Amino acid sequence: MPTLCKPSVSVPEYVITMEDTLAFAERAHAGKPQLPLVLRLIQNTGVQKRHIVQPIEEALRHPGFEERNRIYALESKKRCPGVIEQALANAGVGVRDIDLIIYVSCTGFLMPSLTAWLINSMGFRSDTRQIPIAQLGCAAGGAAINRAHDFCKAYPGSNVLIVACELCSLCYQPDDDGVGALLSDGLFGDAVAAAVVRGSGGTGMTLQRNASYLIPNTEEWISYAVRATGFHFQLDRRVPGTMEPLAPVLRDLATDHGWDVRNLDFYIVHAGGPRILDDLAKFLDVDRERFRHSWATLTQYGNIASAVVLDALRRLFDEDPPVPGGTGLLAGFGPGITAEMALGAWSTDAPTNVH
Amino acid sequence: MPTLCKPSVSVPEYVITMEDTLAFAERAHAGKPQLPLVLRLIQNTGVQKRHIVQPIEEALRHPGFEERNRIYALESKKRCPGVIEQALANAGVGVRDIDLIIYVSCTGFLMPSLTAWLINSMGFRSDTRQIPIAQLGCAAGGAAINRAHDFCKAYPGSNVLIVACELCSLCYQPDDDGVGALLSDGLFGDAVAAAVVRGSGGTGMTLQRNASYLIPNTEEWISYAVRATGFHFQLDRRVPGTMEPLAPVLRDLATDHGWDVRNLDFYIVHAGGPRILDDLAKFLDVDRERFRHSWATLTQYGNIASAVVLDALRRLFDEDPPVPGGTGLLAGFGPGITAEMALGAWSTDAPTNVH
Repeated sequence: MPTLCKPSVSVPEYVITMEDTLAFAERAHAGKPQLPLVLRLIQNTGVQKRHIVQPIEEALRHPGFEERNRIYALESKKRCPGVIEQALANAGVGVRDIDLIIYVSCTGFLMPSLTAWLINSMGFRSDTRQIPIAQLGCAAGGAAINRAHDFCKAYPGSNVLIVACELCSLCYQPDDDGVGALLSDGLFGDAVAAAVVRGSGGTGMTLQRNASYLIPNTEEWISYAVRATGFHFQLDRRVPGTMEPLAPVLRDLATDHGWDVRNLDFYIVHAGGPRILDDLAKFLDVDRERFRHSWATLTQYGNIASAVVLDALRRLFDEDPPVPGGTGLLAGFGPGITAEMALGAWSTDAPTNVH
Repeated sequence: MPTLCKPSVSVPEYVITMEDTLAFAERAHAGKPQLPLVLRLIQNTGVQKRHIVQPIEEALRHPGFEERNRIYALESKKRCPGVIEQALANAGVGVRDIDLIIYVSCTGFLMPSLTAWLINSMGFRSDTRQIPIAQLGCAAGGAAINRAHDFCKAYPGSNVLIVACELCSLCYQPDDDGVGALLSDGLFGDAVAAAVVRGSGGTGMTLQRNASYLIPNTEEWISYAVRATGFHFQLDRRVPGTMEPLAPVLRDLATDHGWDVRNLDFYIVHAGGPRILDDLAKFLDVDRERFRHSWATLTQYGNIASAVVLDALRRLFDEDPPVPGGTGLLAGFGPGITAEMALGAWSTDAPTNVH
């Protein structure tokens, strides 16, 4: 059974607190009618601090899309290898054991994707398959896990490396005044995460079943406007309410698997924002405290896009790993509006190196 | 055994001949030192005509990256559904039979990808999985086929829709004078292609084995510079020579499968340019005429990026379908430099609807 091993996560060295964000917003929107709304949006995110790849003064400037992408290339090459090495070590596998790299990132655009550079510079095999995904946004972490699961089903015993590199601060658009932009300014943070799905052996979440769901006719609710200045985040006011239609889908998925979604042993869900987590707890009829690892990611790192589910899972490993056989649910949400969902159980097989 | 059914391909209504391209180049580069090189590059492409989504006068203007992406969204929504309907009909399946959509396109960037709009507007199931890939360039057609193959191995009996939407004329950069840009101006064309991989039944190429290969340390040889003006195609002078290191990889793949790469019944390879096709024939020791379907795509449509392999396969279906059991090779090449390779045999199972 494919097993999602312990993720490795790294956040950058520059820290912005909620106080910093409020102070910057006070200055940026001074005297403008939207100021009270902006401050309320920032406070409501619940994000206590975020980590970004540049000093805040740099991040607040817009040096142009070309320069932003140059920084993305530089920073992703600087930050991914160490995180990947740790993820491989966590799983007890080496670079030559990896059969597929799934690289997800919606905050910079490279062609070829970073997969080519990683294969060349880190010593992965030349026949390593590559799936780079830029267009699933925050749902891409769940999508990567699910596609890794599928690949291991197709080729039992193979190993898949997942990398989520989200440098959200490089999509900050200082001139945008829409609600989506104002909210995102206080919500998103930067992080790099990686994890290995081992085809056999390993400790972590066995991947037993996965599913995708697109909420009908919501494709314009979360989107990028693509402009000369890069990617502009756009959010419809109805997005925070999407957990109501999604909860029954998650419930049915668990039921089809013979499980009760209210009584699982762990929950790893995308921390899109406080309303998402609160509503999902309410509509699934589970205590909001069950999403504590997602809440911790949100308050400590902000919404780190596709890396959220990997970071919340890392916290589960560190803080209160389930008992063997404990059942769990993992779900990412993003543009589409797409949900990528997985069910699995905790496995503590003695780690065996596959070298 | 998963079967790649007959692709459907559509090219736009605006036609540019080689004579048109030469005449435009004479005007654009009049009096400049690069003119003789430009004319020679265009003539050497062997591209007799190309089809593009706008009149040539429009295509030669650069209205900005935002407007280009707006046109991409408009044209892809206008052109994909009909091609997809035909691909489904070719395979004898309906929209509700599709379990996964793999959408590949490197010539426009939408978030969410077109998959969300397709699912909503064409009636695909809400639980259809989505794999949008923007960063494998011309190799993405082969990658889509291979990932569809993997998915059908994981979930026998499932059906995968592949869509390749390449509007290369929307990446024309009138101010670029590099060799890559000058060459691409005479080489690339627009096309939309789609095909279904059926998990069981269907007529076409059974997918028996696939592999990827990254030529070491060539990640900068084919790339996009991402700028405020959009995607700028960059090509290293060494790219045309890459078939020499790739041919042994293809040969070994066939040998491992018990086949002789020199004696297959059909060959569907990416028509990156005339040198690619000539060299591959030479280094594989097969007659260049065996690549006639790829040559036809190149001369009639230009290099249509990830859609090339689907169009060449369509020509095989139309013009000289192999005998049942006939063996074949399919290969796409693109940035990385990545090769996506597949081996399969011709199957003419009586078409059975899976409704």
